[in-house]
Amino acid sequence: MSESLRILLVGASGTLGKAIAKELGARHKIISAGRNDSDFALDITDPVSIRQALEKAGPLDAVISATGAVTFAPLAEFKAARIGESAHTLGLESKLMGQVNLALVARDLLRDRGSITLTSGVLSEHPIAAGSSASMVNGAVDAFVHAAAVEMPRGLRINVISPTVFAESMDSYGPFFRGFVPVPVARVALAFSRSVEGLETGKIYRVY
Amino acid sequence: MSESLRILLVGASGTLGKAIAKELGARHKIISAGRNDSDFALDITDPVSIRQALEKAGPLDAVISATGAVTFAPLAEFKAARIGESAHTLGLESKLMGQVNLALVARDLLRDRGSITLTSGVLSEHPIAAGSSASMVNGAVDAFVHAAAVEMPRGLRINVISPTVFAESMDSYGPFFRGFVPVPVARVALAFSRSVEGLETGKIYRVY
Repeated sequence: MSESLRILLVGASGTLGKAIAKELGARHKIISAGRNDSDFALDITDPVSIRQALEKAGPLDAVISATGAVTFAPLAEFKAARIGESAHTLGLESKLMGQVNLALVARDLLRDRGSITLTSGVLSEHPIAAGSSASMVNGAVDAFVHAAAVEMPRGLRINVISPTVFAESMDSYGPFFRGFVPVPVARVALAFSRSVEGLETGKIYRVY
Repeated sequence: MSESLRILLVGASGTLGKAIAKELGARHKIISAGRNDSDFALDITDPVSIRQALEKAGPLDAVISATGAVTFAPLAEFKAARIGESAHTLGLESKLMGQVNLALVARDLLRDRGSITLTSGVLSEHPIAAGSSASMVNGAVDAFVHAAAVEMPRGLRINVISPTVFAESMDSYGPFFRGFVPVPVARVALAFSRSVEGLETGKIYRVY
């Protein structure tokens, strides 16, 4: 593609966000959104702040999410509770519905034939100890993207990147992911390039 | 298996529940739980009522869920909203967290080596118009079961049945599932027998 795109990147200050900005920023205009160090303030758990950030950002060709919190804790610690009453469900409010809401706002505001790219993770397919809530959330994100793609208007596309543990995050996440082959975050960023600069929709790009 | 099991069946009064009761009731003791026509009252969206029903039901070898509501509506109708503020998220509170909460209570109360069997559906893998919310919910249930299985204590097992549209439900659901091959609900009930009377855990039994 020779055309330079205007891309809103949510979570640009994180490990993954920085790698995505480096990969796509070489060819495109990256506009950052998030709670810290960003062009526009955006709290993924607040639908109003999502809409405000996208409206302020001006015309956009792509929205990328590299954000969303999940809880890692042993299944034994989780008790039956309603959403919002247990740490088990934090990821449903943040990583799942935060990203779904971002996609719904982007659906309304993106330029025709724009793209939406979300982030899930390897746990949707490969469980680990203390990962049941994260698996649930990632599985929901994957399935939502798969289904939303067929109903997107105006030629809009939506994909999701499902990475394994990052080589750069092994100090903190290594103990959870024993035996998993870590991938450099720069390689994960390539999948975001494929989603944004390619033509596919409804895809789960597994980077593991 | 020659041993007769005590099985709590949630949603026994529905199309699927009746077929499961017919299949497994020939060899085992079925105790029904649900909002209607049941041995014990159970509202899947209320964690307290789940625990009360399982405690009242006495010693159990298996818990089966054939319940949980989801919303079918075009993606175009969904707006960004927090959980509980949109029809889009009804399934997260009912079919997803209702079944997760049932599994968490069953984890505490089932006899050693007991089994938990939940229900998802074909939309986690095969999207339809108006199905994005149901896909999201079914994908979450599948991934939760897959992950929770590796952390279950006391030899407990957990599986999920993912059926396509029932032949018996084509009058109401047929227009959503054009081109899908419907399956008789009695065949779906066989998958529940496999889960309860077999030895596998962490499986998604796809009936389509």
